[in-house]
Amino acid sequence: MSLADSPAPPGAPARGRPRSEAVEGAVIEGVLKLLEDGVPLAELSIERIARTAGVGKATIYRRWNGKEELFVDVVRAAEPPDAELPGTSMRDDLVALLEQRRTRGVMTRTSVLLHNVFAQMKSSPKVWAAYHASVVRPRRRLQIEILRRGQQNGELREDIDLELVNDLMVGPMLLRTVMRPEADVETDLSEDLSERIVDTLLEGLRPVKSSTT
Amino acid sequence: MSLADSPAPPGAPARGRPRSEAVEGAVIEGVLKLLEDGVPLAELSIERIARTAGVGKATIYRRWNGKEELFVDVVRAAEPPDAELPGTSMRDDLVALLEQRRTRGVMTRTSVLLHNVFAQMKSSPKVWAAYHASVVRPRRRLQIEILRRGQQNGELREDIDLELVNDLMVGPMLLRTVMRPEADVETDLSEDLSERIVDTLLEGLRPVKSSTT
Repeated sequence: MSLADSPAPPGAPARGRPRSEAVEGAVIEGVLKLLEDGVPLAELSIERIARTAGVGKATIYRRWNGKEELFVDVVRAAEPPDAELPGTSMRDDLVALLEQRRTRGVMTRTSVLLHNVFAQMKSSPKVWAAYHASVVRPRRRLQIEILRRGQQNGELREDIDLELVNDLMVGPMLLRTVMRPEADVETDLSEDLSERIVDTLLEGLRPVKSSTT
Repeated sequence: MSLADSPAPPGAPARGRPRSEAVEGAVIEGVLKLLEDGVPLAELSIERIARTAGVGKATIYRRWNGKEELFVDVVRAAEPPDAELPGTSMRDDLVALLEQRRTRGVMTRTSVLLHNVFAQMKSSPKVWAAYHASVVRPRRRLQIEILRRGQQNGELREDIDLELVNDLMVGPMLLRTVMRPEADVETDLSEDLSERIVDTLLEGLRPVKSSTT
């Protein structure tokens, strides 16, 4: 996977100079290689990363404000890219957003590297906080925005708390991908899961009403 | 909180002799006291627990198959008791089940002791597994059973995967109680949250259909 494939995260800070993607890619690949070799995040110094990537330390510090920020980019290079929103309906956009999480859940069960990258991230409160600020919170804002557009389009009830709707959608997916490590890829994370979550939520759980009610 | 208040967990193994609740209570209070004094679970030996509770080691071994099983009972004494199901409708029973989780989420934010008990439990894979087997899985079976009765009563659509419905209900609550330590008790875990989750799921997210559709 090349970094060029992954778009900048929504809300990522603009940088003062154009990115040199070749150099960034080499640094990120260097970190991934060290992690693959079993070096824990706590032992990854900028010096060691620079040596592995064949660049100077100053080159790294020019691009990232320290190890936490760099490691967030490593996570983003290792995880599935952000969803491309089809824009055809709120429903389709929501399915696409859930699909990114489902794919990531499947990958963490099949890719030892991604599994380790996430485990390392969660073991570092600073990296976890940086990932939240630059990835999780912007993603949440995007979802709320899509729900708001759905209300304007008439796809979503107006008398409803969008934060709650967001959690109704994301909660079941995170329950299966993150909170249940034993969840089965074929059944619990099956390919139609995102559609089933969104469509069941839209439809509601009550039996279809007859016209006399 | 006395142990006598908390009913036996659903699916708990029947024991060969009647429980002596006074002795069990003393042992559990002893463990809670040691935890309150800051002794980590890993350093709690049966010997030390027996000394603190003023009972013999044999008394403890007669009642529990080791530290893991004892600690699960400690968690159950510290967390809110199991929900009493009103039995008036599937909807009301589901709300009661979610309320138990919400109350526990509120308590872990306000009670240092319960917070520590859960943290200690999660740090021990064996205790966590024992809690899953004797508490989480039976609770899940009970929920699925309530959903099944709802299908029979006509409260729940028949064309629906009960495991998915269960996760749609539990996922958002666990997202706020467990996965978001920063969730606010007054707003994110407000007293009407369980009702709002169940009623929104039943109703669905689509605007109310007019009779012409």
